[in-house]
Amino acid sequence: VGQLWLNDRQFEESTVGRLMERPLAVFRPDTQVAEVIEALRELIKKTFVVYVFVTEADGRLVGVVAFRELLFAGREQPLSAVMIKNPFALKPHTQLVDAMREVVTRHYPAYPVCDDQGRLVGSVRGQVMFEQQAFEISAQAGSMVGVEKEERLATPWLQSFKFRHPWLQLNLLTAFIAAGVVGVFQDAINQIVLLAVFLPVLAGQCGNTGCQALAVTLRGMTLGELKPGQARRLLIKEIGLGAGNGFIVGLVAGTGMYLMAHWQQNPSALMLAAITAFSMAASCALSGAAGAMIPQIMKRLGADPATASSIFLTTATDVVSMGVFLSLSTWLVLGG
Amino acid sequence: VGQLWLNDRQFEESTVGRLMERPLAVFRPDTQVAEVIEALRELIKKTFVVYVFVTEADGRLVGVVAFRELLFAGREQPLSAVMIKNPFALKPHTQLVDAMREVVTRHYPAYPVCDDQGRLVGSVRGQVMFEQQAFEISAQAGSMVGVEKEERLATPWLQSFKFRHPWLQLNLLTAFIAAGVVGVFQDAINQIVLLAVFLPVLAGQCGNTGCQALAVTLRGMTLGELKPGQARRLLIKEIGLGAGNGFIVGLVAGTGMYLMAHWQQNPSALMLAAITAFSMAASCALSGAAGAMIPQIMKRLGADPATASSIFLTTATDVVSMGVFLSLSTWLVLGG
Repeated sequence: VGQLWLNDRQFEESTVGRLMERPLAVFRPDTQVAEVIEALRELIKKTFVVYVFVTEADGRLVGVVAFRELLFAGREQPLSAVMIKNPFALKPHTQLVDAMREVVTRHYPAYPVCDDQGRLVGSVRGQVMFEQQAFEISAQAGSMVGVEKEERLATPWLQSFKFRHPWLQLNLLTAFIAAGVVGVFQDAINQIVLLAVFLPVLAGQCGNTGCQALAVTLRGMTLGELKPGQARRLLIKEIGLGAGNGFIVGLVAGTGMYLMAHWQQNPSALMLAAITAFSMAASCALSGAAGAMIPQIMKRLGADPATASSIFLTTATDVVSMGVFLSLSTWLVLGG
Repeated sequence: VGQLWLNDRQFEESTVGRLMERPLAVFRPDTQVAEVIEALRELIKKTFVVYVFVTEADGRLVGVVAFRELLFAGREQPLSAVMIKNPFALKPHTQLVDAMREVVTRHYPAYPVCDDQGRLVGSVRGQVMFEQQAFEISAQAGSMVGVEKEERLATPWLQSFKFRHPWLQLNLLTAFIAAGVVGVFQDAINQIVLLAVFLPVLAGQCGNTGCQALAVTLRGMTLGELKPGQARRLLIKEIGLGAGNGFIVGLVAGTGMYLMAHWQQNPSALMLAAITAFSMAASCALSGAAGAMIPQIMKRLGADPATASSIFLTTATDVVSMGVFLSLSTWLVLGG
């Protein structure tokens, strides 16, 4: 097994460059097959060779030869006669997620990496790329709620604490915003305490609906499915799904509100039920929109689209859902 | 590129068997290298060959030969003289996540798959395994909030609706449980409406703390880091982190409560602040415990550990956090 080459961090995290190995089996086009085989006989004892790379004197990659081709080549042939010309190559600064999209249908065991001038600078194994991607994707669910990519089960307590605590303070700050909305409507709650009972139902439901949209959007971005120009279609779909889901869930929640308000002999039971159902549908539609848009906005701002996305999302869904519900109740029931 | 072999679904989803290809380059141990090379000359025109597999007449795999070995072997040697004996092999019924753990340090381009009697039944490429794993892991964040593994960006609206709606109804059911807790304390809220303002803060904070523990635990399970016997250590760590994070966040939230209660001229402002801080610390500790335990319990019950885990978690954190906060307020402030 070869070693990762560039520990000097000259390439950014999550780029192809970080996963490169130094290519050792490099020959000129006019080298004879017999000579290459002799050189490889020693080389393969020390390192894991997948391909022979063929470069010109200036370092430009002009061909690739597999053991398969060497086996069936004549011993006196030059490499230029048996090599695969103009081979596919990655670039060191390419983001891993973009590189995955290029290689996913190729399935080669290794890929040459060339700079912008076409000079061979390294090679990267397909399997290493997929391992790294699996590792990064497995961090996504944690990222959404403020867990760093580096945190593993074996991370020491203090380190875990330092990783997670700042995000929880951010979450608190955003929760205060939601609390501020409720605070504005303290009079309404004072008059109809049942409103306070339904706040967690509404907020929880919108949060989950939004998180569904958020997770699907993030997955689409990770798997390279979200093509430019599709953002609008996705947004419309998630608004529609949020409204549809929210409408049906709202009917059930509204029925619950009606039964409780009626039991408490509230004369506005039917209106409260209608407000609950409408708030649920409208807020869930907005939650779907927020779930689809937040990761795209974050990416456009140059941030990781997953990081703390769930924290931002629930702030939006809390504020909107509780705001709509309490406003409508104040206006339509209390005549405020 | 070879083709996936077993579309007849004789193997379960997420097992090695599902990813197998039919091995075409299969020879007996006494076959001469020259004969194998001649056979391969034709075979490689039709299919992608990584290894030559060597089996006995009864199908048992006894060796593996790479093109590398063929290149350096004498043409008259039998395969038995150049093959790697007793090669590593996967089993078709092995779960992908377990297989990944076995192959992650091997980095071979392909692995033979043998049944319990050691008979070669297929081969699977390392890259295909990692691709499949990356695909499955990318579904995890969605799974947690009730998105099916099959849902992609291109999934039609109605299908997405059918996938997601049942989980939202489950979420509603669990939200009603949380609402029930709040309902029990309507009198308390009626007397101190400020309690209703802090409910979303407390619930949101505990939910996020629990989700951090949940995500870290799920990731550890996915990457095969959660070894038997470590469950208790993880549980203690997450309870400790929850308590520590909750304590500091609770101090901030308690200060907020004090300022608001004092401004509203509530004589129990200090007690309310203390209750807020204590409830936050205690509930966050319990949220950490819930986050670490829920996926493990689900796995023990034979369910997918990620599916709807966030829905179950937030039910637990909502009930506990709001229950503790409202009980203590009723008992210590209202003397109920």
